[in-house]
Amino acid sequence: MEHGADIETYQIYSKEKLIDFSSNINPLGIPPLIESKIKGDINNLTRYPDIKYRELKKDVSIYLNCDKENVIVGNGAVEIIDSFTMIVKRVIVFTPSFSEYEKRAKVHNKEIVRLKFDENFNINVEDLERAIQPNDLLILGNPNNPTGLRIDKNTLMDIYDVVRSNDAILLLDEAFFEFSSTDYDSIELFKQNKYSNICILRAATKFFALPGLRLGYGASSVELVDRVNDIMMPWSVNGIAESFAKYLFTDEEYILKSKEYIKNERKFLLNELRKLSNIAAYDTDANFILIRLLNVDEEYALKFFLNRGILIRTCSSFISLGKNHIRIAIKSHQDNSIILDIFKELDKI
Amino acid sequence: MEHGADIETYQIYSKEKLIDFSSNINPLGIPPLIESKIKGDINNLTRYPDIKYRELKKDVSIYLNCDKENVIVGNGAVEIIDSFTMIVKRVIVFTPSFSEYEKRAKVHNKEIVRLKFDENFNINVEDLERAIQPNDLLILGNPNNPTGLRIDKNTLMDIYDVVRSNDAILLLDEAFFEFSSTDYDSIELFKQNKYSNICILRAATKFFALPGLRLGYGASSVELVDRVNDIMMPWSVNGIAESFAKYLFTDEEYILKSKEYIKNERKFLLNELRKLSNIAAYDTDANFILIRLLNVDEEYALKFFLNRGILIRTCSSFISLGKNHIRIAIKSHQDNSIILDIFKELDKI
Repeated sequence: MEHGADIETYQIYSKEKLIDFSSNINPLGIPPLIESKIKGDINNLTRYPDIKYRELKKDVSIYLNCDKENVIVGNGAVEIIDSFTMIVKRVIVFTPSFSEYEKRAKVHNKEIVRLKFDENFNINVEDLERAIQPNDLLILGNPNNPTGLRIDKNTLMDIYDVVRSNDAILLLDEAFFEFSSTDYDSIELFKQNKYSNICILRAATKFFALPGLRLGYGASSVELVDRVNDIMMPWSVNGIAESFAKYLFTDEEYILKSKEYIKNERKFLLNELRKLSNIAAYDTDANFILIRLLNVDEEYALKFFLNRGILIRTCSSFISLGKNHIRIAIKSHQDNSIILDIFKELDKI
Repeated sequence: MEHGADIETYQIYSKEKLIDFSSNINPLGIPPLIESKIKGDINNLTRYPDIKYRELKKDVSIYLNCDKENVIVGNGAVEIIDSFTMIVKRVIVFTPSFSEYEKRAKVHNKEIVRLKFDENFNINVEDLERAIQPNDLLILGNPNNPTGLRIDKNTLMDIYDVVRSNDAILLLDEAFFEFSSTDYDSIELFKQNKYSNICILRAATKFFALPGLRLGYGASSVELVDRVNDIMMPWSVNGIAESFAKYLFTDEEYILKSKEYIKNERKFLLNELRKLSNIAAYDTDANFILIRLLNVDEEYALKFFLNRGILIRTCSSFISLGKNHIRIAIKSHQDNSIILDIFKELDKI
């Protein structure tokens, strides 16, 4: 399984309508304001998007609390990742992480440098220091997919120092950032450096529960924004996504409620999962949990859950994870209770 | 002006709300069925698109009357153009044509081979024969932008023979095809060859008047579809676009009415424009008209029309056209009458 969310492939294996635990979407759904906005919103499809996305960038800059000149937008986060790989010589990734980092590098014939997280899925900055060269792109998930861990503030600053002093670029993929409880905001942290040598990437896909919208955005230096815009395709963000930012980012109650909800459900799920004896649930700062299977392999688990109407994410497609890991999303309390019961069933095998 | 439709840049120069003649959209608007479909269509944004676009490809294959295995889809036609440039060594373009052909080749560091149309904007097949090499991508607009001319059937077959015998690929950009009155359908024409060495590209953008939707699609060989899919970004077609094909292509009355409408307005506009003495309007098979200015340059004309509330497309950004060409869309009869009056005013200078 190269990506989660591929319900279409797996539905045939289940009599029940599958509940998708393989993709990681805010279980509270979309901001309530949006639902009414889509109605009659045909005008956003019958016009060209602004080729420079001026309004959209302004809306994003207000949400991120940065200058609009520092905003970059794309057809999902993946288009921005793709474009950054194009402007560098080599791409450094830590494994295991989102497969598209390597995929996009490969598509553009870029040399890939693989480093491994330590046994706790943390970054050894000395490993990075030894490997990095000028014009490298280091891509880090924060929190990382599939491990779920965010980078602590001091480590992040150490990494950034290494990147800057080597004239490299750090692409911090924060698609899951809003789900995590952190003591820092990366956008604020790198504001004083005017986002030099860094791009902090976020998306409407996960936290705002709009994977079909295809809206990725981030903050980077004016110089990097210009370089990347220069190679991106025209009108790559569709008209609905372009117009949504206005309503998407302004519902603070929804944002706080979502963060609080995930925090509580994460605690509940981890607690319950850790009572079981044939799985090991890793720590996580995100809205998903990486699980090591102690008695069965991922294929067995995939079928076991499919037979019970649930799609989980097998993880052997993530480099260095082997065949005994699965990833599950944190969903509604009801769905979470259902999957817990099945884990308990699995525990009896 | 690198692209039409950049209303946002030019509105400040006009007191009136600009009428956009710089982009070429079906003046009848969208298929009536669509308008009701967008309402409450939030479900298409809150789910991931099918990463393999199975339903969408089936819907497109029904419209194109080809096998679904031959269908390719993208985030607008431009993503498919971009992807094809990535899999070849050199890109051959005839000038003047859509600037993104060269832009995408340049972005991917591909050698660009420029050939010129003859004085009537037709293709000299012998020029092509001399220039072409194995693994080249020849990109041709059919009809071509900004000239408006389609390729006649015999020439197209000659071109295809040259492309195939040289192991090259022909990308036939037919974004405007449905507007033209042709005696052949390219999809039918190349069906017997199973679209070997060719991709016929169309889009919802122009004929179906949905530039904000970002839906490009085409027919190509199974081998080329696989090669290009392998390098394309995941979920690049958004969820609304994915779901729209079902309704978009089925309204035959709308399709016929649109074709008939453009045919008549094209005739009317060309007739009227040709009564004027300081412009020369070229023949066109599309929903736009290329015009040579005989007494003023494009900048003068741009301002002249802007002052009267109309945005035209200047053409010096098209290679080999110089500074005395403009392009106008064929719009509603009322809008067409308004622009005609201004052309008459211009004629008095």
